[in-house]
Amino acid sequence: MADPPVNYGVILYPSFHALDVFGPLDILNLLALQRPLNLYLLSSSLEPVSTKPPATAKPPGSPDSNFGEAVVPSHTFSAPPPELDVLLVPGGLGTRDETNIAPAMEFIKEVFPRLKYLITVCTGSALVAKTGLLDGKRATTNKRAWSWATSQGPAVNWVPKARWVVDGNVWTSSGISAGIDATYAFVAEVYGEETAKGIADASEYTRCMDPEADPFAERWGVV
Amino acid sequence: MADPPVNYGVILYPSFHALDVFGPLDILNLLALQRPLNLYLLSSSLEPVSTKPPATAKPPGSPDSNFGEAVVPSHTFSAPPPELDVLLVPGGLGTRDETNIAPAMEFIKEVFPRLKYLITVCTGSALVAKTGLLDGKRATTNKRAWSWATSQGPAVNWVPKARWVVDGNVWTSSGISAGIDATYAFVAEVYGEETAKGIADASEYTRCMDPEADPFAERWGVV
Repeated sequence: MADPPVNYGVILYPSFHALDVFGPLDILNLLALQRPLNLYLLSSSLEPVSTKPPATAKPPGSPDSNFGEAVVPSHTFSAPPPELDVLLVPGGLGTRDETNIAPAMEFIKEVFPRLKYLITVCTGSALVAKTGLLDGKRATTNKRAWSWATSQGPAVNWVPKARWVVDGNVWTSSGISAGIDATYAFVAEVYGEETAKGIADASEYTRCMDPEADPFAERWGVV
Repeated sequence: MADPPVNYGVILYPSFHALDVFGPLDILNLLALQRPLNLYLLSSSLEPVSTKPPATAKPPGSPDSNFGEAVVPSHTFSAPPPELDVLLVPGGLGTRDETNIAPAMEFIKEVFPRLKYLITVCTGSALVAKTGLLDGKRATTNKRAWSWATSQGPAVNWVPKARWVVDGNVWTSSGISAGIDATYAFVAEVYGEETAKGIADASEYTRCMDPEADPFAERWGVV
């Protein structure tokens, strides 16, 4: 690719799902040791953003755990970096609360026309679908949360059996771990297969390289 | 298991490897929605700890990237939580600098006798090996970094071909992604296979369930 992306943004909101962010970012962290890349972590404020499920999002009878990790944003939605080539949108329990994700939705809508690529992981596609940006596009999402997630974008062409789906410059992946395979495929597409393979070997990761290989579609009864 | 672990600690030091922490923690985050668990993120101070490689650890000719994530500790090594059942030690470029990891090494040595389990990911085992705690034990580590990592503990019985190794209450995994499979195996062992399978299905993750299945030992020439 003549002019591969340099500036990556990641959306953070309370109760994002950790691996949706860190699966892809771990690959990009290693890529950034090979070529100059910048990362911007965006949220409503510069306060650390926690993965902890809000009390309201917990199913009834949930145990009294104190378990989660907080990540420090580098930028806010109202003062974003001047350039963003790729935006990554994670899923998570936090997507179930519209107030919680409203600032992210607004930012994504505003910035999308200037992006080279949008990547979503898990129910990150439900969040983006809610903005209308996926209308008429092919996309996938978390298989266990399929009926809720797809209901967030009735005009999206949801693909039930897919590890990930590419439609134009929008890459959507299935649940949680699928974001790792989607990101390797993205790196292969944009920076070359040799680069993707090198990072996977260093990470001791055996990739799923077939976007249609998806045992979890059947496992969760969406096909 | 009669009395399964409740209190998890994770060691953070500058330039830890992100997936070494968040691969395992993502599994435990989901487990904490099912049963009461506590997480303690431990470092030298309460300042956020970044994955960014220190300038000194960068190989010559490294690109000028600004790429990394910072995580907020909950406790310091000098004021740890009263109880820790399991301690997770990640690897990363930060292990190459002895000054950088000295406070973590000292804390691990001090707390080890009171732990139910110690889990290392990647070169986390090199860090622990340096303390002497793995002497005479079977352990594994990152395959690309094999010669450096194993040199940190000459009295360890290093196992070259292993996705993960269990010796007594010490679980060591191979490089980066292997921490995910080791943690699923740990969850299966300690909380039951059904629990591990449920979390993997929800995470849309296809586990490696054979601790001896390790294509990366050959890839990196350590067998």
